Parts: sequence; C-alpha cells; structure tokens
Amino acid sequence: MVRLMRAAVVRAFGEPLAIEQVPIPVPGPGEVLVKVKACGVCHTDLHAVDGDWPVRPILPFVPGHEVAGVVAALGPDVTNLKEGDAVGVAWLHDACQRCEYCESGWETLCEHQHNTGYSCNGGFADYMIADAAFAARLPNNIDFAEIAPILCAGVTSYKGLKETEAQPGEWVAISGIGGLGHVGIQYAKAMGLKVIALDIAPEKLNLARMAGADFAINAATSDAVAEVLKITGGGAHGVLVTAVSPAAFSQAISIARRKATISLVGLPPGQFATPIFDVVLKRITLRGSIVGTRQDLDEAIAFAADRKVKAAISRAPLEDINKVFANLKQGQVEGRVVLDMAMGASTDHAKSEASYV
Amino acid sequence: MVRLMRAAVVRAFGEPLAIEQVPIPVPGPGEVLVKVKACGVCHTDLHAVDGDWPVRPILPFVPGHEVAGVVAALGPDVTNLKEGDAVGVAWLHDACQRCEYCESGWETLCEHQHNTGYSCNGGFADYMIADAAFAARLPNNIDFAEIAPILCAGVTSYKGLKETEAQPGEWVAISGIGGLGHVGIQYAKAMGLKVIALDIAPEKLNLARMAGADFAINAATSDAVAEVLKITGGGAHGVLVTAVSPAAFSQAISIARRKATISLVGLPPGQFATPIFDVVLKRITLRGSIVGTRQDLDEAIAFAADRKVKAAISRAPLEDINKVFANLKQGQVEGRVVLDMAMGASTDHAKSEASYV
Amino acid sequence: MVRLMRAAVVRAFGEPLAIEQVPIPVPGPGEVLVKVKACGVCHTDLHAVDGDWPVRPILPFVPGHEVAGVVAALGPDVTNLKEGDAVGVAWLHDACQRCEYCESGWETLCEHQHNTGYSCNGGFADYMIADAAFAARLPNNIDFAEIAPILCAGVTSYKGLKETEAQPGEWVAISGIGGLGHVGIQYAKAMGLKVIALDIAPEKLNLARMAGADFAINAATSDAVAEVLKITGGGAHGVLVTAVSPAAFSQAISIARRKATISLVGLPPGQFATPIFDVVLKRITLRGSIVGTRQDLDEAIAFAADRKVKAAISRAPLEDINKVFANLKQGQVEGRVVLDMAMGASTDHAKSEASYV
Amino acid sequence: MVRLMRAAVVRAFGEPLAIEQVPIPVPGPGEVLVKVKACGVCHTDLHAVDGDWPVRPILPFVPGHEVAGVVAALGPDVTNLKEGDAVGVAWLHDACQRCEYCESGWETLCEHQHNTGYSCNGGFADYMIADAAFAARLPNNIDFAEIAPILCAGVTSYKGLKETEAQPGEWVAISGIGGLGHVGIQYAKAMGLKVIALDIAPEKLNLARMAGADFAINAATSDAVAEVLKITGGGAHGVLVTAVSPAAFSQAISIARRKATISLVGLPPGQFATPIFDVVLKRITLRGSIVGTRQDLDEAIAFAADRKVKAAISRAPLEDINKVFANLKQGQVEGRVVLDMAMGASTDHAKSEASYV
Repeated sequence: MVRLMRAAVVRAFGEPLAIEQVPIPVPGPGEVLVKVKACGVCHTDLHAVDGDWPVRPILPFVPGHEVAGVVAALGPDVTNLKEGDAVGVAWLHDACQRCEYCESGWETLCEHQHNTGYSCNGGFADYMIADAAFAARLPNNIDFAEIAPILCAGVTSYKGLKETEAQPGEWVAISGIGGLGHVGIQYAKAMGLKVIALDIAPEKLNLARMAGADFAINAATSDAVAEVLKITGGGAHGVLVTAVSPAAFSQAISIARRKATISLVGLPPGQFATPIFDVVLKRITLRGSIVGTRQDLDEAIAFAADRKVKAAISRAPLEDINKVFANLKQGQVEGRVVLDMAMGASTDHAKSEASYV
Repeated sequence: MVRLMRAAVVRAFGEPLAIEQVPIPVPGPGEVLVKVKACGVCHTDLHAVDGDWPVRPILPFVPGHEVAGVVAALGPDVTNLKEGDAVGVAWLHDACQRCEYCESGWETLCEHQHNTGYSCNGGFADYMIADAAFAARLPNNIDFAEIAPILCAGVTSYKGLKETEAQPGEWVAISGIGGLGHVGIQYAKAMGLKVIALDIAPEKLNLARMAGADFAINAATSDAVAEVLKITGGGAHGVLVTAVSPAAFSQAISIARRKATISLVGLPPGQFATPIFDVVLKRITLRGSIVGTRQDLDEAIAFAADRKVKAAISRAPLEDINKVFANLKQGQVEGRVVLDMAMGASTDHAKSEASYV
Repeated sequence: MVRLMRAAVVRAFGEPLAIEQVPIPVPGPGEVLVKVKACGVCHTDLHAVDGDWPVRPILPFVPGHEVAGVVAALGPDVTNLKEGDAVGVAWLHDACQRCEYCESGWETLCEHQHNTGYSCNGGFADYMIADAAFAARLPNNIDFAEIAPILCAGVTSYKGLKETEAQPGEWVAISGIGGLGHVGIQYAKAMGLKVIALDIAPEKLNLARMAGADFAINAATSDAVAEVLKITGGGAHGVLVTAVSPAAFSQAISIARRKATISLVGLPPGQFATPIFDVVLKRITLRGSIVGTRQDLDEAIAFAADRKVKAAISRAPLEDINKVFANLKQGQVEGRVVLDMAMGASTDHAKSEASYV
Repeated sequence: MVRLMRAAVVRAFGEPLAIEQVPIPVPGPGEVLVKVKACGVCHTDLHAVDGDWPVRPILPFVPGHEVAGVVAALGPDVTNLKEGDAVGVAWLHDACQRCEYCESGWETLCEHQHNTGYSCNGGFADYMIADAAFAARLPNNIDFAEIAPILCAGVTSYKGLKETEAQPGEWVAISGIGGLGHVGIQYAKAMGLKVIALDIAPEKLNLARMAGADFAINAATSDAVAEVLKITGGGAHGVLVTAVSPAAFSQAISIARRKATISLVGLPPGQFATPIFDVVLKRITLRGSIVGTRQDLDEAIAFAADRKVKAAISRAPLEDINKVFANLKQGQVEGRVVLDMAMGASTDHAKSEASYV
C-alpha cells in the first residue's frame, strides 16, 4: 500500500501550485526520509516556480529549501543519523565530494550538485528525501518554524557577511532588509561588526532597528550616501547587497570605503553597470556569494542556537502557498513566511501519516 | 645663478608638449633631487596630458612616472639616501604615512598621496624631485632604460597578479599584451603560474610567446573562450585584465573558473556591464588594483634584478615625446617606449648639467 | 629658565626608582611634548627596571609605556597634532617607516624602532616626548587613567587575539587573567568569540567572570583540560597565553583544537618544551605576538571608546611606584595599577607646571 | 578458489617483515582493488614496523603508503574510477567526509581517518584496497616508480612549503635533504621561491644542488646561520624542517626572518625547546604540517606531471624490504627507495596474478 502525503506541486511554470496527495518517497542508499515540520518561503522558490533562470527545474517538482524536520526513516548505509534526529535541509541538497571545490571546502561551487526544491523535490510537502551527508543537525528543543529560515536566508546572509572580510569593530552596510537582510543584521552584530541598514520602506527600517542595526537609513533619500560616509568616517568596510537592484548596486559602490568588499547574494536576471574608475582607484572588491557550505551552515545554526540570531517569521499552512507567493511578489512580507506543516493538515493526510509511522 | 634643464611641459590639455628650459628644482626637507636617466611612457601620461580624468593636474606640469635615475642632491634631513644612489620614482610620489591605509601597508590608497607626473612634476625632464622615503632603491649595474618600465608597468602588473590570489601551479589569463601585459606574463611565470595570453593583434601574441606565455590566444576569434576553458580544465584561477575594453571585461568573466578572481588594472573612463548571475553562482571576485606599494615595488624590482623579468623597450629622446604619444594612441607600440635622457641632449642642456654637478 | 618636572628615574638596575625633579624635555622636529595625565604599570616596566632582557636600557632612564595625556607643545614640522589634543603613547615610540616591516603594516617588527620607557624616556613623569607620527589619538571626554592600560595591555591582548585567527562564533581560551587577560576577555567578547578564562587564583577567575568570560576554569585542577575539551567540543580554536609559565604553555597545547593557533604575548626569559608529535598531527600553530601597530592601537582604542572594553584599574600617585612594583612582583595586583599624575603632586611640581603652561 | 599475492607482513613490532603469500583482498562498497606497481619506502613505515608511536597498528599488517598502481577491480557503487585507471594511494586512506575538518578542506585532520599501511593494509604487496573517493588520479604514461614518492614525500614537502606562507620571490630554507627535502627543493623552485638547502652530509648537499637549490650550506659548520642571514638579508621568510632534530629545530629559529613561518613535517618522538623571547619579539610562527589533502595531492602530482618535480629514486624488489629498512635507519639512502613490484616476482605469484586477471 502506497502511503500518501500532501505536497505543493509545480506542474507548469508561472502557474499556481496545486496541493496534491502524492506518494511518500522512499530513501535510497545514503539518504533519509525527513518529516517536514516547517519550511520557509524564499524568493528563489518564486524564481523556480516561474522558471526565471537559464536552467529550469524539470516539471513537475516540489519547491522549498528552508526545511526543518525530523528523520522519519533511514535509507541503506546511513550511519550518521537516526530516526527522530532533528535535521535541516538547505538549497545544497548534495554535492559530489570529489571535485576540486568539494575537496577544498567550497562544495557550494560543485558542478555536480543537486538543489533542494529545484533539481530534487523540496520541503513544501509533508515528507522529503535528504542526503544523509548533507542534512544539517539542528539543536534540540528548537522551534522548527523559527529555525527554518536559517537554512537559507540565515546561512546566505551569514556567508555573504564572511565574504565581505569585514573584521570585528569595522562597519558593514546591509542593503535590503527583507528575509535575508533582517537576519544578516543580527549575524553582523554577533560577529562584532557595526551595522548600517539601508532600505526604502519605513517598516523595513523599523525591522532593521529591532534587529539591532546601529543605524537604519532610508536609501532613497538624497543624502543617504553622505550620511553613511559621515557615520563610518569614509565608507563601510564591507557591504552586503541583498537588494540587488541597479540602484542598490550603484549605491553600494558609493558607500564602500577604500579597500572594501561588496558581497552580492541575490540572483536577479540582468547586468549591473560597474564604474571601473572607482573600483580601481579605491581597490574595491566585488564578490558573488551563493548560500553556504555545510560548515557555514553549522556555524549559522550555532548562532541561532545561542539565541544571537532569530528570524522574524509569520506562519502559514501549506495550503496558503499561492497566497504567500503573491504577497512576496508585492514586497508585502516582513521578515520571513514559514509554512508550518502542523497547521491546516487535512484529515486524509493525518491518516496517511499515522499509517506511515 | 639659476641652473636650467630640459623638461617636456604640458601647458594646455590635449596640446603637444613643449620641450622647454626650466629651472632645476631644489629639494626640500625629506626630498632628493634625482638626475633622470630614463623615463618610460605610460598610457596614464596620455590621460594626464589630455585631462581625461575627473581630477585634472594643475597646469603647467611635467608628466612621467616611470623614472630611473641617480640621486643628484639631498634636501635637509635625508638620511636614507646619498648622492649617486640609483633610485626609481613611481606614480606614488609620497603618502601621508599616518592614515589607516598607510599604516596597514596600503599606502596606494592614501587619500593624501601625491602622484608623480600628475600632482607633482615627473620624469620627462633632466631632473626631478623625489620624496626620500618613497624613492625606490635600484640595483647596481642596471640599464636605467630597461628598469624604468618596472616602476609602473612592472609593479602594476605584478601587484595585479598578486591580487588575483592565483597560487603557484594554477592558471592565470592575461588579457591585453601591451606595456603591462608583456611584463605581467614574465612575472606570472616567475611566480610559478601557468599563463594564457589573450590579445587581438598577432604581433602582440608573438610578444606574449617570447615573454614566456604557455599559450597565446587570439581573443577576437569565436572559440577563444572555449579554448581557454579546455586548456585550463574549467577556466583560469586568476584573470589579469590590462585591456579594459567592455569586450575584454566580458570575456574575462567567461574564462574565469569558479571562485576565480579577476583583477582590473586599467583606468578607462566609463562602466562595464557585470552579469550578476554568473558572478554570484560561480562566486567570482572582481577587484580593482592600482599600481603598488613600496613593498610591492621592491619585490617587482627584485624580480627584474634577478633577470626573471625584462621589459621589451625601444628608446627615444625626450624631444620625441609627442611622436611617442601619437604612436601610443594608435596602439603601435610593442612593449614600452622609454625616454633615454642621454639621447639627443641639446648643447645648452649639457652645459647646464655640467654647471650643476 | 629651565622648567622642572617630577620623574621616576632608574639609576641602577634592580634598585628602587627615585622620584626626582628633572628638566622638562624639549620636543625636536616631528616630536611633541606630552603632559602625562596617567600611565599604567606593566610587567615590562619591571623587566626594564631589573635589566632582565638581553639588551638593557641605558641608564639612567624613565620607564612607563601606557601613557595617556595631552599635547603640551609641538616640535618643528608637526602638522597632524595640536596643543591640547588627547594622545596616547605606547611601547612603540617610533619606527623607521622605510623598512620592509614598516612598509607592510608590521612596524612592530622594525629593527630600528625605539621603545617608550626603555630606549627613550617614558611616562612615569609629568611630561615626556612622543613622536607625532606614532602618538595615538584618544577620544574626547575620556578618563585618562581608564584608557591608559589600553595603550599596552589592551592592544597587546587585542592583537594577540587577532593573531589566533579565531573567527566570530568560535572558542578562544585565555590563559592568565592579569592586566592583559582581563581586557583580553572583553576584546574577545566584542569580537564575537566565546571565551574560556583560565587562571589559578580564585579572585582572578572572579575578575574573568565579571569581564564576561563564558567560563572561568581553575587551571590548576586536574580536570581543567578535560573541561575545556568538553565545553568546546574538541578544544579551543584559539588560545591566548598571557601567563607564559611552562605549565600554562603545556596546557595551551592540550586544550588546542586541531588547526588551532596559540598566541604567546608574554616575554619571560627561557624556553618551553614543544611536543612535536601533537603539533604536527594536530597542525597546531604557535605564534609570538608583540604589542600592536598604530592601526591595531587605533582599533583597540575604538573598542574602549565604544565602551566594549574597560580596564579594571586602581590609581596610585607617581610617588608610590616602588610600592606598586612590589605588589606586581608578588602577583597581588588585580587588573591594572595606573599612576594618576593628578594624585599627590608635590608643591614644587605644581609650581613648575604652572610656570610651564 | 582464493587467489594469492605477495605481501611484506609485520607480525611483531621491531622484527623483520616476512614476504608471505596471502589472499588478494576483495573491495567492498566504495572501494577499489589496486594492482600495486610501485611503492616508496618512507620513514613512517619504519615507525610503523617498530611500533614507535603512541597508537600502534594492529598486528599483523602490511605497511606502505606511497603507492602507484592501476585499478584492478571495482567494489560496489564505485562510479568515479574504472579498471585500468592509474591511481595513487597515500597515507590518508579515507576520512569521514562529514566532520568540521573534512567539510572545510582539512580532511587530514579528520579524527575518523584511516591510514594506509598503518590502520589498513598498504602497498608492500601486489594488491591492496583503496577508497575510491580518496585514490588519486595519476597522469597517463607515467613511470610508476618515479611517481610513487610524490604520494607521500612529495605532497608532504609541498604542503609543508605552502604552510610556510612564503611568497614567490621570497627565501625558503629547507633543513634536511632526504626523501622529503630533495623534492621539497624542486617544489619550492616551481613555486617561485629562492631556496637555501641545509644538511650535514656532503652527498646530500650535492643532491640539493642537483635538485636546484640556490645555495646548499653545511648546517654543521659554525657560520651556517650567519651565512643564511647574509644571503637572505635578514633570514628566510619560510623554513621547512624535515630534519627534526633538536639542533635543526633550534637552527630553524635562528635563520628565520622576522614574521617568518617555520613548518615542521617530521614526527620524531620527544620535545623541542622553544625560545619564547625570539618567537615573540620576532613574531615567529611555528606550525606542524601533516601530509596533504586530496587537493594538495592533486596539485603535487600536477607539478610532477609537468616535469617540474622528479624524485631521485633507486628501485628494489619487494623481497629486499628488510635491507632497505636497514639502510634507511643508517641514513644511507639518497632520495627515495621505491619497491618496484615488477622486479623479482616469484613464479607462484605470477601464476596467481595471471589467474586473477
């Protein structure tokens, strides 16, 4: 008898997701079945659903890559996890472990990687498959919905901050205070950095202040750049750009101190104009940063476990996914929306789950 | 009695330089008078003469910042040099020695720096003033004209290579094989790197091969990128872009390996389009690099003294400066033209020099 | 008329200092006269007075290198300071600014440096000479006695922590909670590190807790090493050894995580046994660290100005210097003793000072 | 029918090895069977056979961890190798791939690693088992005996050099010109370093010169230190100590430039006296280094494939292993002895091999 579960399935790009009853997958060698407790909703999910990027997912698929759950079953040869372990699943579903990137601590660059909720099914479902070697250990007694955003928004902003190479005591500017930015502020403070937050929406600047930013500045005002230069005495040592609009990118260069590094963590389509003269004369470094390795993820989770970082979340049932996407598209989300699988579970599902365990 | 010397003077932007008889300057405290033996001609001199950059030199001025000569007189309080010492003078004429950049080994970013041949008079003359703390020691028994290009083309390409962070045994691509590129190839080889040279002119590719490039590829052909990717097995670990055209910049990103650093050392006006998706997904680092510090310069000179690096030069008398500029503008220079002060000296000058010493 | 001032003068090694009336020095070119407001007392002063080290000071001399004061007069050619500026003077009195170390941000290694209170007169006096390029700017409205220990104990422990290369979120163990250790704990916390303090005196462990250590462990107990390994899950990522006894050194290696760096900041005579097997198999790095550069010092002061770090001090008049040394030798000092020049000034001195200003 | 092979087996510590006929092992999941073509003999093998180290191998076992051979059979689930592939097997037989060290490119520090010829059987045999994820790819058309020493002596000295952080153009001193030192010289030259070789045996200094050392100095002479200081202008930027005697260690500190790093790659029992004063005042870094990661190994092999590095070898049949050990103990080996499995194969073995394939 096949056991069923709920899943939010993409059957056509750009179309609403359907909440369907589908078979619970079976873990293969080195894999585990994860009972999803909570899954954050990220802009990347939108890009996946809309098929925005050069290489599209193969239809149909289940999005979701900010997964917090527990191990429900082990596939063959799994020794590092056991049933009941709290685990997280991130964008980096698995990597080859044998290429120059995997061998040197840069598995996020592995050309053979698979990505959760993109090239393999993700966490907008009651269950999913994780690679046992890539599932992250979560601390005990955690609120799954609270920790979920750390799996992508958290680690991505944390890694992006590391990539700025800003040192404790130095200034970092964080541009864009959404899902990534508002946890980025907290990571930066926990890393001993001084933080200036930049956004154009007053409620996001409020969120920035609550998150601990030393200064929160409206990026749209005419003197925003001058203000940053004055506060920092010559510009920020690092800039984390989560709001990758051309205007934000251009502003990032204007507020960068000489020798600063600007870290870009978003993936909009298109190109940004880079002013060569400034970049050369001020020896500015521009650097892309993409999610984080397992090591980065363990560190990001540890900060959250130590209560240094906490995502601002609102919970929604899986069934509301299309509504959540609509709000996200309109920029009406503060912090992060997390799908809480305990909310609104259908009777059928409850039954199939019961029969599973 | 005022002693006179020859100097190539800019009296109006964009106009030919005049070879004039002007007073030999007198070194102040901490300064030395340098008898110029040779001075290389750099693209930056063209930008200075044409007033291309946002902050222009104050007229009139004498260009030239690839100076090799000997100390002819000491100003007050100079203890680290003596008359007769062979010295070089580079773009970084002096810096404040007290700002965060000077204190941390990044004096090239000092906001109080002066620049030779730009904000103070340079080496297109028989004599010039140098700051004793910033004059570089040259090895004995050196050919002044041969060492001159190391003072700018050499140190700039060397520092740019260091800034790629490519390690011995790795691949570096050098785009643009002019004054900088052809010494850059030699520095790269001396640093244990494997080198691919890219240019669009056959004679420059020949120069690249003579300079020791492992491969020299015509950047204008349709399969140039594919060829680099094949040779390097996935892209170059570092890219040094001396030919900062939009096409070269775009190609640099295409030939960059994941996690590569692209180092930009030219100063064209304008902006280049940066493809965010590639930069983020491949974690590419773009970095401006501007000349080099005294430490970089000492290292660059040491490689030349060890005969690991030698600029391809042609010599010209000071009086030919306008002709040299014309050729440079038309891209008709291979390697570097160096003004050799021993060539074509006027009788008057010989006299004034004699009276000086 | 020669103006006089108080000074604690060493006339014979190992003998008590004499409080004498000596002429106020006159600043030369590039120097300033500093009116000493407060000067911390450091173990190094003891070594200087006792002539413990291979190269001894030339008698007679005035010790003291944790100086906080104000500029009282400018020597010729000083442009970066003005009378009344609050400045600090540290161990590194001046350096040559032209050697490979000075040029690369490692002026603390300059072979031509002079050291305050050792090879030039220090701050156990009402006035002293400072090099204008090496005097540190102090924040306004500061308590001079409170900031004084930052000039040596502060910057030395801060730099030592940087040299461990421990990253925010990682564990650092600090061995020895005296003048350096108790500010080191605060720097470590401000840098986002987790801190274990080790000492053998209960009152110093209390000081450690007050300073913010996450754990304070009695290093003399039999299970101290096991406790550190358990807390840190395998050892500390960095170890700062201020208590450089053979036992502390040996323990530092035992509590080091694989790939850890142990930073040594004390200068006891003698040698320590290094267990090669552990160092190699665990890839441990041992590193000496000596005070800090001007850049390090500016950073260390900034943390204090931001109220992240505050030395625990007790104040004493200059006249008590021999008593202070006696207590220091017996390990009876908690935190730092600072000579406060406003305390116990003699009538004569008050007069001479008045006549000076 | 069980197929047999030759193996040099340790049945008691400190006793001669017996050449025995033993069953050819069968590769398990993720493993491959390697037909050993050549295996270098390393000092570590001696330590293993004599049971010198704290944790001893479990008897009986087959030593040998400088293995070059071809894949003879695949275990289940192996996809990255195929029969006939030329592979190398190094000291790091396998690691867990999931700890903080494995995840960050430091698998050599994995606490769950197995070691070839120590905790699992090695290459002093006709066949052995390798972990498919840790077997190194060898270039085609290679002489197996020539490449074998790269698998340990090569990668260990190469990694040790990287760990000195000496940069191209700087000076490195290599102390001890045996199996490691003589390839270390070649790596150093290929990395753009200037090399001073130190040893006490004239024939090893000759070997050093043939290997390309810029200077070869008798370490036992009274002015060896002065000579190094003179040549380098103040000391070597990096020191690689392969001869870890107390005298060599002490000399390493004496010849280290300020800010130098000394890299220790040997594993003698015991302790070395570290002079704290010098280490602190000169900011010297001492660092243990143990073999190399797969990435280091790939790089080390690439240098050999590019003919930049070539071990000086002498070949011996497996049956001579005890004689080889005796010579090694007496320091009578120049370069490296490699067991060439094609020499002196017994008739029985030839048969069993034939029947295997």
